[in-house]
Amino acid sequence: MSTTVAYLGPAGTFTEAALLKLRSTGVFGTSEITPLAVSSPALALDAVRSGEAAFACVAIENSVDGPVTPTFDALSAGEGVQIYREVDLDIAFSIMVRPGTTLEDIKTLATHPVGYQQVKGWMAENIPAAEYRSASSNAAGAEAVAEGRVDAAAAPERAAALFGLETIADNIADFSGATTRFVAVGPRGVPTPRTGNDRTSVVFSLPNEPGTLVNALTEFAQRGVDLSRIESRPTRRKLGSYNFHIDLIGHIDDTPLAEALRALWLRTEDLVFLGSWPAETGEGGEDKLAADLARLEQATQWVNNAREGKE
Amino acid sequence: MSTTVAYLGPAGTFTEAALLKLRSTGVFGTSEITPLAVSSPALALDAVRSGEAAFACVAIENSVDGPVTPTFDALSAGEGVQIYREVDLDIAFSIMVRPGTTLEDIKTLATHPVGYQQVKGWMAENIPAAEYRSASSNAAGAEAVAEGRVDAAAAPERAAALFGLETIADNIADFSGATTRFVAVGPRGVPTPRTGNDRTSVVFSLPNEPGTLVNALTEFAQRGVDLSRIESRPTRRKLGSYNFHIDLIGHIDDTPLAEALRALWLRTEDLVFLGSWPAETGEGGEDKLAADLARLEQATQWVNNAREGKE
Amino acid sequence: MSTTVAYLGPAGTFTEAALLKLRSTGVFGTSEITPLAVSSPALALDAVRSGEAAFACVAIENSVDGPVTPTFDALSAGEGVQIYREVDLDIAFSIMVRPGTTLEDIKTLATHPVGYQQVKGWMAENIPAAEYRSASSNAAGAEAVAEGRVDAAAAPERAAALFGLETIADNIADFSGATTRFVAVGPRGVPTPRTGNDRTSVVFSLPNEPGTLVNALTEFAQRGVDLSRIESRPTRRKLGSYNFHIDLIGHIDDTPLAEALRALWLRTEDLVFLGSWPAETGEGGEDKLAADLARLEQATQWVNNAREGKE
Amino acid sequence: MSTTVAYLGPAGTFTEAALLKLRSTGVFGTSEITPLAVSSPALALDAVRSGEAAFACVAIENSVDGPVTPTFDALSAGEGVQIYREVDLDIAFSIMVRPGTTLEDIKTLATHPVGYQQVKGWMAENIPAAEYRSASSNAAGAEAVAEGRVDAAAAPERAAALFGLETIADNIADFSGATTRFVAVGPRGVPTPRTGNDRTSVVFSLPNEPGTLVNALTEFAQRGVDLSRIESRPTRRKLGSYNFHIDLIGHIDDTPLAEALRALWLRTEDLVFLGSWPAETGEGGEDKLAADLARLEQATQWVNNAREGKE
Repeated sequence: MSTTVAYLGPAGTFTEAALLKLRSTGVFGTSEITPLAVSSPALALDAVRSGEAAFACVAIENSVDGPVTPTFDALSAGEGVQIYREVDLDIAFSIMVRPGTTLEDIKTLATHPVGYQQVKGWMAENIPAAEYRSASSNAAGAEAVAEGRVDAAAAPERAAALFGLETIADNIADFSGATTRFVAVGPRGVPTPRTGNDRTSVVFSLPNEPGTLVNALTEFAQRGVDLSRIESRPTRRKLGSYNFHIDLIGHIDDTPLAEALRALWLRTEDLVFLGSWPAETGEGGEDKLAADLARLEQATQWVNNAREGKE
Repeated sequence: MSTTVAYLGPAGTFTEAALLKLRSTGVFGTSEITPLAVSSPALALDAVRSGEAAFACVAIENSVDGPVTPTFDALSAGEGVQIYREVDLDIAFSIMVRPGTTLEDIKTLATHPVGYQQVKGWMAENIPAAEYRSASSNAAGAEAVAEGRVDAAAAPERAAALFGLETIADNIADFSGATTRFVAVGPRGVPTPRTGNDRTSVVFSLPNEPGTLVNALTEFAQRGVDLSRIESRPTRRKLGSYNFHIDLIGHIDDTPLAEALRALWLRTEDLVFLGSWPAETGEGGEDKLAADLARLEQATQWVNNAREGKE
Repeated sequence: MSTTVAYLGPAGTFTEAALLKLRSTGVFGTSEITPLAVSSPALALDAVRSGEAAFACVAIENSVDGPVTPTFDALSAGEGVQIYREVDLDIAFSIMVRPGTTLEDIKTLATHPVGYQQVKGWMAENIPAAEYRSASSNAAGAEAVAEGRVDAAAAPERAAALFGLETIADNIADFSGATTRFVAVGPRGVPTPRTGNDRTSVVFSLPNEPGTLVNALTEFAQRGVDLSRIESRPTRRKLGSYNFHIDLIGHIDDTPLAEALRALWLRTEDLVFLGSWPAETGEGGEDKLAADLARLEQATQWVNNAREGKE
Repeated sequence: MSTTVAYLGPAGTFTEAALLKLRSTGVFGTSEITPLAVSSPALALDAVRSGEAAFACVAIENSVDGPVTPTFDALSAGEGVQIYREVDLDIAFSIMVRPGTTLEDIKTLATHPVGYQQVKGWMAENIPAAEYRSASSNAAGAEAVAEGRVDAAAAPERAAALFGLETIADNIADFSGATTRFVAVGPRGVPTPRTGNDRTSVVFSLPNEPGTLVNALTEFAQRGVDLSRIESRPTRRKLGSYNFHIDLIGHIDDTPLAEALRALWLRTEDLVFLGSWPAETGEGGEDKLAADLARLEQATQWVNNAREGKE
């Protein structure tokens, strides 16, 4: 039986490429995948929440443009979903046109706003007169070219073949080494087992009092748990009122991280767990995990001995 | 003589309304303003850096969509500019069309992506079949309607008159009370005098070591200086490498804040000062400032007496 | 069968009075006590370590002279003993002499050095020419009077009757309200159950690196565990090398305190548990304990739900 | 003209030896010293406060017995005095008797209580039956031997000659390498110039609220100022109410230390400055001082530039 995975479509997007890469990690439990193309990260997560899809594949962070805020807002908009895996994808664009179009012919170029951040330097240099048109995805931009609505698209190479277009420039990227991180999101469930090199993500809000943010972050620092990212996102209630999204190095089954989260719960007004999963990058691993566990076990034993009156 | 102020044009944007509100604060030093419409926050700041404009008026934060990241990226992209003042503007949209167009006729609606976040709920309910088209500003969307390129725009009421359009719905906002904060940016200079209710903004990067973020933030917390906002923005060098933008409650002429910044400088790889200016919201004021100064003066006197051998 | 309890003798000391008060708390498990008088706190603890006595009663802190350092040094000199209970005793001295002696006759006055701190003001005023002689206990001072070796002693009233002396002044105390805290020390064992108003004591040493002391204390502060006392005692290895003795508000069965101790273990070179026992003073109690437990249970439940994939 | 220096007499004490060592540092401003023997650290400081002596030389800390609490209590008992210099003295005792006395003849041995802590092991082994008699100083013990009041004294070698006694054992010390630190105390005045390797001492009390001690100590830790010692001394008001004595690495003319003290003043109920003076031990020095100053100067320049609108 096949598993449905929602993604930002149509076929030919970077998200589709990420979906295929995620499939190879085994996170979907099968390699029989039915891709379900939707038009936004929010709709992809809605498909998981409604049961229409078993998983969603969404972009979460980009090395050039930062966090993909629609994904973050969709993740924290409701309970019921959780991140199970991440993959990093090198992002390079091809400029594709209908066969016969030349650089000089390009009056309009469509791509996703995040993609635009990565090709606008190239546009200014090569087609300075061309106008940018926003597309809901890079592949949707290619589709618009095929349909004659715009002249060119910046999209993954693969989209040219899918939509019968011609590539007139490739490997376009204003910042070399641009990477996007995608995650597999499923319904609330037991996290994948810890590997010694994991990432955990939570969202929380704090009482509007001096020092609450530093006190909250100190719960992690004091226990040696590192933050890899912090964002404040508006609560949409009033200007200056925020939710905080943080990524932590470690797994909820790591004692220091779990105890830090428990302490955080006591300080927050609202705390949402977005998952613990294996990190693509990082320096941990099974050896470090085993060493940390052994040392912590000694400390726990010390406390237990004291409680039980043993030497 | 008139002072040139760059802003996100064309005429009719919220940014233009903010510019007029900023003019009334006196921050431009004159009420004789020559508005210079440009097509992005980055170009507005470039106009200040090049001397083409004396000031720029740019949106910095929105209560629904959060920080206006292009503004942040433009502010930290280079030295030489500084924030001098802020104003908060209530954001309400009107839906405008060419005379005679009805709701049913609307196939395409243009507005700025941030504006789209605030009207998409209304669109789903009232014109579910209409397609969203990205515009470089809300007024540019209205202009596109006037030119017949799209059917409708979500823009400030004032844009309808400017472009000869008809309003078919107004006060549209998915989130009531939506507010955007705009700032006046000028060339590097002496900040405005402190008022007891000020805001200070800096950008910095940190060595990639455990605990550096909490240690940096503790410099403020320990001295009683509150953070009102924190963002991590990618450095564009590699995934997971960030600059931090923070807003602080207080002025660089406040001793605790100045000493915290000096301590922060010692911890950072790079520290950029984006200005100290009067805050629109907040609970400080001259009385609190005077009381704080008096108490600090006593503490300083204690140290001086010890240094000089006086009782 | 009777239980042997070592104490700083001879009969008639404040320590003997404290022993009787401790007996009434039930800490000795019986009211059949065989007091064993010894000449120092160290010898009292040695009696427990060797099994000669089941418990020791020793003074630990005085409101005028501070920590009773010989007791602290004896507690941390070796493993194997633990505090089970405390009692506070008001300290008031009587001046006692052989029958017929007058104030003018007093050339020498004997008492314990800690007692001397509390009567030296009285001596300066009333018998300025008299010389102080150190005694191993206040009652030993009274005994020395009885044996004719000194002229007067400052000791508990009860010692006058025991040694056939006459009181010529009573309720002597340079500082009114002077109090001494005594503790019941037994062999290593399971602490008494928590009461919601407990005290815990530990001794530790730290790596000689900057910031280690504050980091260690922050383990408690961050978890809301209060310190009631801190001492640095020389390790006797070199000048400036210390062990730290701290008293904490709470019980090792309180989760925050236990986790703070576990974290402390990871930071220390050596950590000795000196017991958890009911505090004589303090504001806790069963209600607060129950409320804290309930809230902590909610936080733990949040973590468990996240681990198990439950909402 | 000669300068009067009060010390714990009589001649022959370790304190007298320390006085001579302090004289050689130049702290007294002259080498013409008139020693004034008094019978306690409190009386030595009183002599300075009253003007009878220009300086006092008092023991402050011992590597075996820890802080010399009478000195601490005398320092914090009133304002008006300050530490200007320290010297460390190796402590080794000689056992001295009247000529002709043998080990077997010794029934009583007198020395200061701190000295007793260092010879009691030797006594237990060599003269187990002898009784300890407290003396106000080690030399006073030697004097008592000369007067026939006790049989032996543990005192500095030099005391034997002064009092016509015979040494029957020397270099006695239960802990090898025992050292005592002595300080020169004068009236309130300007501290000696910083050397890059200084020590600063303060006494303070804190509001009786959770976390105040850690918050106070964090003022130093956060600024990189190390504590070399901490004591809690009872305020003599009630059990569990303390003053804190801390020694800091650095000089009040060091900016971080001065700012930490200023911040501490804002947190304390009472803050007494006991002086900044050159440390005998430590790793600082002029090179480190110059490097720290240069880096701090850069940070200060950054703040000043921001305040003045310079790049």
